[in-house]
Amino acid sequence: MTDTTPDVSRRRFLQSVGISGGAGALFATMGALGLAPTATAAIPAYEPPRGGDLRVTGRTPGRVMILGGGIAGLTAAYELGKAGHRCTVLEARDLAGGRNLTVRRGTTETDLDGRTQQADYSPDGYFNAGPARIAQWMVTMDYCRELGVPVEVFTNANANALIYNETAGMPPGAPVRYRTAKADMYGYVAELLAKATDQGALDGELTATDKDRLLAFLQSFGAIGGRSAGWAYTGTSRRGYTSDPGAGNDVGVPLGAPAPLSEVFASNVGRYFSFELGYDQAMLMFQPVGGMDRIVSALVRAVGPGNVRTGAEVEQVSTDGSGVTVAYRRAGRVRQLRADFCVATLPPHLMARVPHNLGADVQSALSAFPASAAGKIGIEYRSRWWEQDLRIYGGITETDLDLAHIWYPSHGFHTQRGIVVGYYNTGAAARAYGALTPAERYERALAQGVKIHGERYRAEADASFSIAWHRTRHIEGAWVSAPYGTAAYELLLRPAGRVYFAGDWLSRTVAWQHGAFLSARAAVTGLHSRMLSEPATTVTD
Amino acid sequence: MTDTTPDVSRRRFLQSVGISGGAGALFATMGALGLAPTATAAIPAYEPPRGGDLRVTGRTPGRVMILGGGIAGLTAAYELGKAGHRCTVLEARDLAGGRNLTVRRGTTETDLDGRTQQADYSPDGYFNAGPARIAQWMVTMDYCRELGVPVEVFTNANANALIYNETAGMPPGAPVRYRTAKADMYGYVAELLAKATDQGALDGELTATDKDRLLAFLQSFGAIGGRSAGWAYTGTSRRGYTSDPGAGNDVGVPLGAPAPLSEVFASNVGRYFSFELGYDQAMLMFQPVGGMDRIVSALVRAVGPGNVRTGAEVEQVSTDGSGVTVAYRRAGRVRQLRADFCVATLPPHLMARVPHNLGADVQSALSAFPASAAGKIGIEYRSRWWEQDLRIYGGITETDLDLAHIWYPSHGFHTQRGIVVGYYNTGAAARAYGALTPAERYERALAQGVKIHGERYRAEADASFSIAWHRTRHIEGAWVSAPYGTAAYELLLRPAGRVYFAGDWLSRTVAWQHGAFLSARAAVTGLHSRMLSEPATTVTD
Repeated sequence: MTDTTPDVSRRRFLQSVGISGGAGALFATMGALGLAPTATAAIPAYEPPRGGDLRVTGRTPGRVMILGGGIAGLTAAYELGKAGHRCTVLEARDLAGGRNLTVRRGTTETDLDGRTQQADYSPDGYFNAGPARIAQWMVTMDYCRELGVPVEVFTNANANALIYNETAGMPPGAPVRYRTAKADMYGYVAELLAKATDQGALDGELTATDKDRLLAFLQSFGAIGGRSAGWAYTGTSRRGYTSDPGAGNDVGVPLGAPAPLSEVFASNVGRYFSFELGYDQAMLMFQPVGGMDRIVSALVRAVGPGNVRTGAEVEQVSTDGSGVTVAYRRAGRVRQLRADFCVATLPPHLMARVPHNLGADVQSALSAFPASAAGKIGIEYRSRWWEQDLRIYGGITETDLDLAHIWYPSHGFHTQRGIVVGYYNTGAAARAYGALTPAERYERALAQGVKIHGERYRAEADASFSIAWHRTRHIEGAWVSAPYGTAAYELLLRPAGRVYFAGDWLSRTVAWQHGAFLSARAAVTGLHSRMLSEPATTVTD
Repeated sequence: MTDTTPDVSRRRFLQSVGISGGAGALFATMGALGLAPTATAAIPAYEPPRGGDLRVTGRTPGRVMILGGGIAGLTAAYELGKAGHRCTVLEARDLAGGRNLTVRRGTTETDLDGRTQQADYSPDGYFNAGPARIAQWMVTMDYCRELGVPVEVFTNANANALIYNETAGMPPGAPVRYRTAKADMYGYVAELLAKATDQGALDGELTATDKDRLLAFLQSFGAIGGRSAGWAYTGTSRRGYTSDPGAGNDVGVPLGAPAPLSEVFASNVGRYFSFELGYDQAMLMFQPVGGMDRIVSALVRAVGPGNVRTGAEVEQVSTDGSGVTVAYRRAGRVRQLRADFCVATLPPHLMARVPHNLGADVQSALSAFPASAAGKIGIEYRSRWWEQDLRIYGGITETDLDLAHIWYPSHGFHTQRGIVVGYYNTGAAARAYGALTPAERYERALAQGVKIHGERYRAEADASFSIAWHRTRHIEGAWVSAPYGTAAYELLLRPAGRVYFAGDWLSRTVAWQHGAFLSARAAVTGLHSRMLSEPATTVTD
């Protein structure tokens, strides 16, 4: 390694900052670059199991049963397979993926209430009923790269999307665009702070230089007038146009002056602005090209489709000194499998229903993860009126209606049809929609959406498919509340005999595939290193 | 039309708002929907010329010479072709498109200083040297749709991209991420305004209800503490992590506490925040899949490649009572063409050099559009280190260096290589880079970029191609300053004899293709309607 390699030059640079800038500067610098040494010290980089690990110690690959074919289960099988371990994945549903479910023409679900839906979308139509977006920092991106799954931008925020607050008194058909709402809120906030600053109200907080810098920022950020104009916000082209600027002397027709400050505050549009500042939701976000289940397909291909048994319901799990025995029911027949180890990735509340000999404390711990409700509906439209009429090419309209969010599709721009997520709600709203029949959900989603988009929202609709995750067989929840810091949570981070647990529910990013991937890696690391410390005990069925 | 059609129900709704809410509410409502009636009244919707227009009046299609094969020229030919008019496009450069130039392997340019570059990118590599982004509202999107050019998201803003302000004292290698900069600026702004509000400094501006609403907004927007915490901003996960949250008890390593307010203000990071609020730059933005020149290719296909003569330099333009005569040089030979009309879309400062009989006032007007300088370099890298190491999947890093902006590619995510726009600068910086040889520009771009990205910015670089638009043959400028409101501008909006002018320079969105498309439409509308009012005078060469 020479002085010109990045690592050395960075380290030298950091030393020099440490010397000249004090600890604060050092930390800020390292933080900006993501180089803070505590990070690497705390969590060693993941090392996939290797076949060589076994060979050099004279061992043979092990046999591992994996319960649940969602992201955690498939990833465990995929990673263990890198060392040659032979894995069998048991998945109770008819297809692998778990909540990573992309609904397409022909997708069929019968829910816990016995209601069957079959998606009747056009051949190219699909929507991601479960996870649908990936932050750049998430390990999900690395898996897409490693598995050869192309990604494209998920349009998580759009200045042209709408905000509709019924409880704030917005009449039907009167949403505001995000860009307009932002211009007005930022404008008035800047005006108020500029006035307070200039009048000396913050002299205890700010030096004269701070004040100059703050005022310069506020003028740019809020597009407000200067001191001579009383720092007033009076609206700018940031609000938008009713007719866009064009050729010659067509300067366009701007939306005009903003409503008074009190009205803008009362409209409560600003409540949605912090969403896009969140570490997990800030743009840019991504999605696999062709549907989130492209990740599932790629994992299944990598694991070997013959090693993933769908329609296989786990009926019993027993651990003993030399292995694990799993009984499962498939096509009416009960079979029993024996393996060296097991990775259990079922949702904890479902695992709690499986007879096992893992102990009462494990049983109690599995019951300590309350599951949440969430629902989504994908409505296929005959035309992409949101693009052609409203110039909304993707993004999310935010509302205080029980539908919560409306997502415009992030793919298929300018094609004939498209599937809009007509609601994505949680909690009480999700339970209320989930209690309806699919036809009733569809009707309610349309009736609510008409308040925002007018009658075309109903007139152009052609087909729908809805999911209530808390009423979905073999899943029964959108995600869980993990009991961090409790003995229950700690217990399940450790193996119960020869059974390891994994899933987003055992991570710090519950409800994100990132957590499922990393939790699977953690189980795999523990399991593989344990195999290396034990005599080989390969068993057969 | 029945009461359930959107138009009628909207109109009724607007009437009801007008009655109940007063004029302010009516305007705000209409504005939000983009329905303000002044818009439609002011600018009639564009009607493409139709062959039927000619037939019903017993006329035959005309012959039109089009000078310049950029977006305006090609669009004029395309739109006139819809009515059957026979158009010939003369383009001085070796390929059509003008500033809509996508540089690929083999692209060759010899600039006004005699410097020749040939792009040596890998086969799939490309970058858009001219226009590169499209706002959702722009008519460019409609042309992509009409011409069958697929679009994808252009990543104009990214929370993971960087800000680097050398003049504010940031040491080399110490950029901050956008998300961190925003968290801190919004946090301190919220803290200051909350304090001033709560202390009564704004009681003259705000009612008690306003104050409550503002404080609630500021807590969410800035992620600040409440009253009992003195409204203090102390940093949150919005700032980012040096190690991301993961499985089990890995809560990640947050970046930590923000620098003090004075330091954050002094870093001047907030100067870049207004960019993404602009009407023309707010996300979501788009680009054609495969390169901006896909629009050019589609237009040329639609016009008929045989009707676009490249390498054809206009040498003279004469208008008379019955037509226009154009002399041009191609492959050393001068030819002369005769047509009913002409649409001149050359940049005005180049058109001013063409001998013509359009009058001294036209000549003077053409000279009244000063041209600007701009430069870009596309640097191909052997690896996509910005994705793998920095988790920057597209977007723009902003700097106060003379390179101004660094763009990470919005396509080819996770592929092996990628082309980064290493500078996109204007004015003095563009002239300074433009005065260098291509090799010197490359070296300077690398040296400056190393300040942000470290030595890998140089080590991984493999090939470059740079353009200085003001030194590019047959273009000689990035865009113009249009003299709006002057007699010169007004004059060129009207035909000079039988010569019409068009280009983004005759629009209210100079430097955007939107302006070129709409200006071409305006010329086409004028020309076609004039043909319908004149006896047919078709001429031949």
